[in-house]
Amino acid sequence: MNHIPVSQRAKNTPASPIRKLTPSAKKAKEKGVRVYHLNIGQPDFPAPPEFLKQLKGFSQKEVTYAPSEGLSEMVDAWKTYYHSHAIPFEKEDIIVTTGGSEAILFALMAVADPGDELIIFEPLYTNYLTFAQETSVKLVPITTYLKNGFHIPNNPEIEKKITSKTKGIIICNPSNPTGTVYKRSELKRIAEIAEKHNLFVISDEVYREFVFKVRSISMMEFSFIREQLVIIDSISKRFNLCGARVGCLASKNKKIVEAALKFAQGRLASPTIEQLSAVPLLKNYRKYTKSVVEEYRKRKNAVISVLKTIPGVKFYLPEGAFYLIAELPIRDAEYFCRWLLEEFQDQGETVMFAPAQGFYQTPQLGIKEIRIAFVLESKKLKRSMEILKIALEEYKK
Amino acid sequence: MNHIPVSQRAKNTPASPIRKLTPSAKKAKEKGVRVYHLNIGQPDFPAPPEFLKQLKGFSQKEVTYAPSEGLSEMVDAWKTYYHSHAIPFEKEDIIVTTGGSEAILFALMAVADPGDELIIFEPLYTNYLTFAQETSVKLVPITTYLKNGFHIPNNPEIEKKITSKTKGIIICNPSNPTGTVYKRSELKRIAEIAEKHNLFVISDEVYREFVFKVRSISMMEFSFIREQLVIIDSISKRFNLCGARVGCLASKNKKIVEAALKFAQGRLASPTIEQLSAVPLLKNYRKYTKSVVEEYRKRKNAVISVLKTIPGVKFYLPEGAFYLIAELPIRDAEYFCRWLLEEFQDQGETVMFAPAQGFYQTPQLGIKEIRIAFVLESKKLKRSMEILKIALEEYKK
Repeated sequence: MNHIPVSQRAKNTPASPIRKLTPSAKKAKEKGVRVYHLNIGQPDFPAPPEFLKQLKGFSQKEVTYAPSEGLSEMVDAWKTYYHSHAIPFEKEDIIVTTGGSEAILFALMAVADPGDELIIFEPLYTNYLTFAQETSVKLVPITTYLKNGFHIPNNPEIEKKITSKTKGIIICNPSNPTGTVYKRSELKRIAEIAEKHNLFVISDEVYREFVFKVRSISMMEFSFIREQLVIIDSISKRFNLCGARVGCLASKNKKIVEAALKFAQGRLASPTIEQLSAVPLLKNYRKYTKSVVEEYRKRKNAVISVLKTIPGVKFYLPEGAFYLIAELPIRDAEYFCRWLLEEFQDQGETVMFAPAQGFYQTPQLGIKEIRIAFVLESKKLKRSMEILKIALEEYKK
Repeated sequence: MNHIPVSQRAKNTPASPIRKLTPSAKKAKEKGVRVYHLNIGQPDFPAPPEFLKQLKGFSQKEVTYAPSEGLSEMVDAWKTYYHSHAIPFEKEDIIVTTGGSEAILFALMAVADPGDELIIFEPLYTNYLTFAQETSVKLVPITTYLKNGFHIPNNPEIEKKITSKTKGIIICNPSNPTGTVYKRSELKRIAEIAEKHNLFVISDEVYREFVFKVRSISMMEFSFIREQLVIIDSISKRFNLCGARVGCLASKNKKIVEAALKFAQGRLASPTIEQLSAVPLLKNYRKYTKSVVEEYRKRKNAVISVLKTIPGVKFYLPEGAFYLIAELPIRDAEYFCRWLLEEFQDQGETVMFAPAQGFYQTPQLGIKEIRIAFVLESKKLKRSMEILKIALEEYKK
């Protein structure tokens, strides 16, 4: 029996920072401690009744491959959805993907070859690191800071990262993991830089409706870079259908869509039944998202109402999505988060956060930070923040 | 507006040879000609009633992410399935994937880095070419021939392709696109070569039950290379659930499973509902596969009963799966297949095949060959072969 090493990319792919502490959470539960899970972006809302109704009404006898580009009804539903946002995508611009995740993979492969570089703002959605390893693309991070609400730095800070290997800029707006919603002026700067330097822009807009103050601007509004733009989308968060795995890649660049179609043909098809069941939702998205956004607003306020009373905790007001990154008055957030699960409890309860270090590509950043996901009801969130407060007092002793 | 080139890998990824002639088929249909589709591996069987029953019985209110490694019930169902085949996979050896397709992608990324080589036998399942382009891995083809029923050549023919870059050997057994079922002695030679040269073996066994004479041997039977082995599997063909997208990667190599889990975490999860619905099938697979294999046997016989009467057509007896590659007495099968769709008809009917050239990586091979998929009932298959016979007579005039 030989022990052959796995690939370098397999070795370099990071384990999920969100699920890293799961064994510690398991230990807590085994001791009978209740754990509030604020580590993962898995909301607690029910699936829309219309989705479940469609599912139960599935009447086909055969469960055949969908077309690789997506069921025609589903592609059309995405088109209708975009048009209701005044985003001018037509059916031929859209490839249905197995979740937004697959759209990211297709986008990276379509714009970059091994060794090519993509600029990304950190803290970042960590799975970009995985997809970059998988495709041997180099992510070049530009750090954003809590004190600025994680907004984008000035142009020279961005342009100094551009090399002959740079193929594009990745942006996630509203941002996971920071909850930042970028201003029109920021996004316009990105568009202008992309135009000036011949770069693609990969714009991950899966949280489009999840904004608390101003609406989220799609990169598609900057018509002068439309053909350089790849949009990543998903129904997962928008309709609380994380498990349904339906997303899309959309672009006005015909070569990008052609590439995505070839990649889509390689994996044959996305799930037929879950596509069919999701069609009605995209055709009338406001019906679902409006109340959900209101609920997230309440939750954000609940989190903040307690967070601001904890001495030494630094945070900012998230403008969208359902995350917040907070800096804690401690040395090492990962150590603290593990301690929360393995050694601490208050009245039989504790809380699980994602240490934010895993959301940075640059080493040694975010060491004192945690990501809080607003995925429980307000009362539980408040209680979670109270637990954090009590825990910090005890931890510092 | 800049016109930025897409990546080289996007350019190099082949379009699907199976779907290549779809525009020609469309033209035929627009003229009112009925097309028998024997080009694609999409069987016409209904989904198992138990799957549809499970689907309609889905009673969860929330459609949450499944665990990245798969729902525990689903992983357990795969384990039960393997044990009933006397294949000793345990739960910790299995990662549920979104179809067999994703298992292939994970396997390539786990064993090879850009520029690394994998040996594969051609004619091959064409999507391997796509996944190799996506991951920048080089596939090194070893040609097999119709006159030998596409069986594997002798060891020196294989070993001369091994270089310092070779990381593994890919085998698909029973084979798509040839229907060849490899003998124990052939597979043992592959195992011995892998052991001698420190190579992984990626064994795609999605057609495991689909055999007409002898049972299919899993590479797992060669216990001396178990830790070098990655098994690719899928429910798509086995249960006529192509659209459900449930597969798995299984391996006794812990580093491989660890890598696959990290890749799985990157894309979060496989579809929850379709996983849940498929559980009962894997726990009692024989109930479904036995009658289906009998039907394929009849279909194969139907195809051959007419094929053998066509002058100049060369073929062999496929031993499994539901494909056959035939050599036609013409110069260019792709040209002929297009002609069949665009210019020919017999009593308002014609037939669509996949030209086999796309199943070879080596240029200029398979030019006279087509792949026939037994995906229609025997009567339609016989009629399709009659159409082929009449068409060849007319074409040669």
